[in-house]
Amino acid sequence: MEKLPIVTLTTDFGLQDGFVGILKGVIWSICPQAQIADISHAVPPQGVRAGGLMLQRAAPYFPPGTVHLAVVDPGVGTARRPLAARLGAHLFVGPDNGLFTAVLEDAERLGGAVEFVELTEKRFWRTEVSATFHGRDLFAPVAAHLAGGVALADLGPAVTDPQRIDLPRAMRTANGWRAHVTSIDAFGNLGSDLPAAGLGAGSLIVRIRGRQINGLVHSYGARPPGELVALIDSQDRLEIAVVNGSAARELGARLGDPIEIFINLV
Amino acid sequence: MEKLPIVTLTTDFGLQDGFVGILKGVIWSICPQAQIADISHAVPPQGVRAGGLMLQRAAPYFPPGTVHLAVVDPGVGTARRPLAARLGAHLFVGPDNGLFTAVLEDAERLGGAVEFVELTEKRFWRTEVSATFHGRDLFAPVAAHLAGGVALADLGPAVTDPQRIDLPRAMRTANGWRAHVTSIDAFGNLGSDLPAAGLGAGSLIVRIRGRQINGLVHSYGARPPGELVALIDSQDRLEIAVVNGSAARELGARLGDPIEIFINLV
Amino acid sequence: MEKLPIVTLTTDFGLQDGFVGILKGVIWSICPQAQIADISHAVPPQGVRAGGLMLQRAAPYFPPGTVHLAVVDPGVGTARRPLAARLGAHLFVGPDNGLFTAVLEDAERLGGAVEFVELTEKRFWRTEVSATFHGRDLFAPVAAHLAGGVALADLGPAVTDPQRIDLPRAMRTANGWRAHVTSIDAFGNLGSDLPAAGLGAGSLIVRIRGRQINGLVHSYGARPPGELVALIDSQDRLEIAVVNGSAARELGARLGDPIEIFINLV
Repeated sequence: MEKLPIVTLTTDFGLQDGFVGILKGVIWSICPQAQIADISHAVPPQGVRAGGLMLQRAAPYFPPGTVHLAVVDPGVGTARRPLAARLGAHLFVGPDNGLFTAVLEDAERLGGAVEFVELTEKRFWRTEVSATFHGRDLFAPVAAHLAGGVALADLGPAVTDPQRIDLPRAMRTANGWRAHVTSIDAFGNLGSDLPAAGLGAGSLIVRIRGRQINGLVHSYGARPPGELVALIDSQDRLEIAVVNGSAARELGARLGDPIEIFINLV
Repeated sequence: MEKLPIVTLTTDFGLQDGFVGILKGVIWSICPQAQIADISHAVPPQGVRAGGLMLQRAAPYFPPGTVHLAVVDPGVGTARRPLAARLGAHLFVGPDNGLFTAVLEDAERLGGAVEFVELTEKRFWRTEVSATFHGRDLFAPVAAHLAGGVALADLGPAVTDPQRIDLPRAMRTANGWRAHVTSIDAFGNLGSDLPAAGLGAGSLIVRIRGRQINGLVHSYGARPPGELVALIDSQDRLEIAVVNGSAARELGARLGDPIEIFINLV
Repeated sequence: MEKLPIVTLTTDFGLQDGFVGILKGVIWSICPQAQIADISHAVPPQGVRAGGLMLQRAAPYFPPGTVHLAVVDPGVGTARRPLAARLGAHLFVGPDNGLFTAVLEDAERLGGAVEFVELTEKRFWRTEVSATFHGRDLFAPVAAHLAGGVALADLGPAVTDPQRIDLPRAMRTANGWRAHVTSIDAFGNLGSDLPAAGLGAGSLIVRIRGRQINGLVHSYGARPPGELVALIDSQDRLEIAVVNGSAARELGARLGDPIEIFINLV
């Protein structure tokens, strides 16, 4: 089967105003056969960290060569550089504000390709570039050209110092780990920054917002509805959940909340 | 014009977290030319009944051969079977928890194909299967393989006892029907389980939440804004609506509320 | 690269109920290779004016020949005419209720094509047409046939008096302009009906809801977070925004609110 170019979209635009449709119109004007998938347009406004983690979670499930367009861009119209990058087997386009830190760190850790360029070649942009919608006028056209086969190096000069931001990281403690809530999904499940590999096979106690959980379950269905459980999520990280309910609501949890993990205490 | 394979998605994932984008990435990794349409990702969390009714309403409008991937899966990671099915002219993939009851009953009623298989052939899954995201690791890959031409029978052994759940059903009364509110749409219109065929051509009184409606109108525009009306909806069922308003809000109606219909009383 | 037909969707259906998926199923049943993009399904219920402005903003960014299906249709099932149109380089399908006024005025102003037809040729519709869902039964099939190459003139007889509605328009005052809030986006930015060309290069004072803004900024990043600013938006119109915040929330602004602009007062 013929392989069509794929472009994904991750923004803080919301779906109500038609901005996402405009991006698709611009992309198809340049690369008519692109398959376009929305990753999310509900990144919190100006939520560079949240958007970057979203991208990190979703991008690897797309085929190699996919172009990921990400626009969370509080500095639009200022001197912040517009970038494109090859990170591992994927291509990325967006502002230089740390949005790509998580996918960059993954590429470095896995020994994949790491190349950034500053977007300076205006022939790949719309003719007129507004001060407030570079997603439409600059990033979407560049993403479409990449999808259509233009080489990364043709878009502008190499960049070796892309902006990085601090990402949450679980830290070792005397008895285990201090982790953080890094995502809250639509079910109210709480994702964390603690990789499953850190937990070993021994006994385990998890404390979050004054509640204690003993041990891990394999899946939600292992316990009755309403019970607070800890488990390994589909990203291979510690997750806190309420069976058929919302841990976020039951605990009043928020992004960044600490999670304490005690290993082999008894 | 060349016919491309089509995959639809119906889930309770919401659109905020990128899970839907991940499904599309997995599908295109296996079947690059698939056209993918979202039916809804706003099925209430763990809302197996609501998700099944949504699927029943939308699936018939897709071309024969469409693969409908449906993931409302409170039992993910437990012993509940993963299934694929041919029901009428369409294919379905999802958990064995009653989600397909409504489309199954339609296929039986219309004399269409009814074949279920249990998904046991792991070569059609992702290599690693998490305990909490079978949508990504098992169902989406299988849907993509079906869309790409793999035969249903190759996915696993036949199943003759798929899980069924009770669906709401209008019941005959001495003077007419006792029906139920089975859907509430974004306009606040109330769908029911009473087929138009049950109403005949005589006079009609509808009672819901203490309010009475005399007779049917042909369409919303037949009455002034704000008026409570009964009509036959686009699924050929009794619907309660407020012209240019929200019947759900005006009546405080909820799913399951009874609707009494009196025929030829006078 | 082969150019695929494109259909866009703009409705007040919301995304929760599966109606949008149904439109896509109907379109692909007729025109299997159509690329389909959602512009927005969050037009306020029966919001003909808002839907038309949304369409005006997004349609020009799609390639020439794109078919724009727009369904905001409080008069569905009444005598209001169903229409298709060629306006400039684009095609439009939807009800005759003023939804196309803004794109029509743009085509007239720019000297583009202006052709309307009434949809009377039932062979391009679904066989059974419900009274409440012409989007599914009439407009989507016609849009798909147009995308597949059917000529506009084959759909029905010419219409020369399409319904028009009043659109907000900035008006000259002694010292400048009286404009209006015409859109509020997900960020809380306030769009207006005042084209940038009306502002000239002199000094400028903007008053809205008792607050005063002196001068324009180039982009959001030009001022510190939280500051209320005026700027030229990506549609080349006056916009009111709060840097990294929500002007709508801070001002309690609503659609239609007046904005007073004083030019060269000092």
